[in-house]
Amino acid sequence: MTLYNHEYWMAKAIQLAQKGRYTTHPNPRVGCVLVKGDQLIGQGFHLKAGEAHAEVNALNDAKKNSQDVKGATAYVTLEPCSHQGKTPPCADALIKAGVACVVFGMQDPNPEVSGRGLAKIKKAGIEVIGPIQELECEALNHGFIKRMTEGLPYIRVKLAMSLDGRTAMESGESQWITGPEARLDVQRLRAQSDAIVTGIGSVLADNPSMTVRIDSDDQEVDSKTVRQPLRVVMDTALSIVPDAKILYPTSQACVFSVEEDIEAEHLNVLNKKGVKVRFSPRGDDGRLDLLDAMEQLADAGINDVLLETGSALAGSFLQAGLVDEITVYMAPKLLGSSARPLFQLPLEAMDEAVELTLKSVRQVGQDLRLVYQPTYLEEDFEEDGFDEDEE
Amino acid sequence: MTLYNHEYWMAKAIQLAQKGRYTTHPNPRVGCVLVKGDQLIGQGFHLKAGEAHAEVNALNDAKKNSQDVKGATAYVTLEPCSHQGKTPPCADALIKAGVACVVFGMQDPNPEVSGRGLAKIKKAGIEVIGPIQELECEALNHGFIKRMTEGLPYIRVKLAMSLDGRTAMESGESQWITGPEARLDVQRLRAQSDAIVTGIGSVLADNPSMTVRIDSDDQEVDSKTVRQPLRVVMDTALSIVPDAKILYPTSQACVFSVEEDIEAEHLNVLNKKGVKVRFSPRGDDGRLDLLDAMEQLADAGINDVLLETGSALAGSFLQAGLVDEITVYMAPKLLGSSARPLFQLPLEAMDEAVELTLKSVRQVGQDLRLVYQPTYLEEDFEEDGFDEDEE
Repeated sequence: MTLYNHEYWMAKAIQLAQKGRYTTHPNPRVGCVLVKGDQLIGQGFHLKAGEAHAEVNALNDAKKNSQDVKGATAYVTLEPCSHQGKTPPCADALIKAGVACVVFGMQDPNPEVSGRGLAKIKKAGIEVIGPIQELECEALNHGFIKRMTEGLPYIRVKLAMSLDGRTAMESGESQWITGPEARLDVQRLRAQSDAIVTGIGSVLADNPSMTVRIDSDDQEVDSKTVRQPLRVVMDTALSIVPDAKILYPTSQACVFSVEEDIEAEHLNVLNKKGVKVRFSPRGDDGRLDLLDAMEQLADAGINDVLLETGSALAGSFLQAGLVDEITVYMAPKLLGSSARPLFQLPLEAMDEAVELTLKSVRQVGQDLRLVYQPTYLEEDFEEDGFDEDEE
Repeated sequence: MTLYNHEYWMAKAIQLAQKGRYTTHPNPRVGCVLVKGDQLIGQGFHLKAGEAHAEVNALNDAKKNSQDVKGATAYVTLEPCSHQGKTPPCADALIKAGVACVVFGMQDPNPEVSGRGLAKIKKAGIEVIGPIQELECEALNHGFIKRMTEGLPYIRVKLAMSLDGRTAMESGESQWITGPEARLDVQRLRAQSDAIVTGIGSVLADNPSMTVRIDSDDQEVDSKTVRQPLRVVMDTALSIVPDAKILYPTSQACVFSVEEDIEAEHLNVLNKKGVKVRFSPRGDDGRLDLLDAMEQLADAGINDVLLETGSALAGSFLQAGLVDEITVYMAPKLLGSSARPLFQLPLEAMDEAVELTLKSVRQVGQDLRLVYQPTYLEEDFEEDGFDEDEE
């Protein structure tokens, strides 16, 4: 009899995986613990692409502690890889180390390799148990999973609004709706995203830099390892000015436009500055096809997108069925009925309302942080199409 | 040494007081426990106007249990009354029973009698301790206290909205934004209010009855003792049709109008039906003076008003500085940017925003119940005036 069950040790592995929350991109967050009897003899997590995976870090940790891994059980949040990447396959490392059992949290979401690592381990005579705590393990890697299974990033819309659902005054004035704690929370959201997407309207209005600003004494994010996400501007007619703050450094920025809509000369100016311009076709609404743009980002290894933009582009993403999660910071104030709406979303009847599912509520300073999922993700959007049969 | 402190026993008395939440109108909710050593020897609360007060009920309870009250400590959430009302003074009853100590939660808020009961008790040689748990005791009787101190009822606005702050579609369609649990919660809010106030717009649009509907198996409210609040329609020009549901039974309804704006014949028709029409002067905005109307309700013994109305009248109450509390039921859906706003509140700059303080958050079914207090209540509104110097 052992004191602890599989869920207990998997929860430890999940905690470890979360340490890679701000750094593993484009790789998934993975944690691993090695257990013998009731003793944890080694632990590890994946920190950074190109560096060792969680399993190898855990095996090295056990070695460092002079622990014998033979006969141990390995708990790993994600199926161990079976292929040579930048590092050797983890399945081989576990087999070589002589573990007796591998407990996994979820299979590899990549349909091309899913199950191969587990098969290799089983074939070596090692017991395989799982999935264990699958939902929790999936929650570590919403973006990675979506990219692997659907070829799209996980798209989170971040909005700051008043109790009466307003994001700015009619004049556009919007600083500051929410308090300093909520604004810090947004920096952490940015830090765990691979790309920040905004619209040309927001860029022209506010000239934001959209960089991650984390203090050196931040309790949650290590400011030294924090990575700047790719900054992406949706700009159908390529109206962005060459000195827009969001474009610099140009290595971490790109602009999406519709090729037929742009001036060649303006493109040249931007190219000379080193700005990367990508093209997407025109969508049904005459504007840039957001689905195509998001597919391009996924192809470029972007797992998690944070959409920080005005109500018009946010409404377009929502109507295109592309929004996976809505994070709303709601300030305790009323901006009044002339102020700007949360989403530009012209609906006429109650049965057209977009249904959401509340995922979490948390007080952040004086504000509330509310996380919702649009229900179309859970229903038959993919079969029926959002525009034709929205419930 | 005793095991329990004053706060412990006062919390018991507060719990008892809450049992009168739906029935004491126009009296305050009051609870009382009698304690000897570490033993509770009697307990009581005020159930209904005209019936015994909490102290007398507790003394009778002790007697019924063959307990000797001599030398006991009485914990009472509100200063015992010193005057003959429908029942004899409670201060006298406690003195006569021979208690050694009276611990009170808060003084009587009525400036004309405040402190008299305690003085009478002290004069009889009984120790007096308090206030204890004053804020919690005040929370039992926000409405009663406001009526006694300001000559106004406590006004709670109830709103049902979507995440994007919309209360109805552009067409007026609004059934149902929130789920059944939230709608049941509203029935309980109604049941603990003395008056439901609405506007003629809502009456003409929906012909609501605005009665309290509580199931016989309701866990919180006893459907047998539930009282129907007064139903009040704000109707400047007296446009209400004589057969509007909200007017019946007429003994529990009234209409506020501006005398110069109404047709005498229509008034006659309503009077013949038994409908009570009250008059208020015209306010600065050319419409009925809401402050005057609310003062009339307070004069009539109304402690707690629930405002259930459209965004226009709700906005007017807010701009008049009359709103004490905003209870919002927020549904997990988006009604879109054409839908109707939460408050008609035309503001232009961020520094005009109405600041709120979040008092509580609770999930009610699929919806969130959010309670806010407008900050003007806590600041210098009374000195500077809301319109001139709103922060």
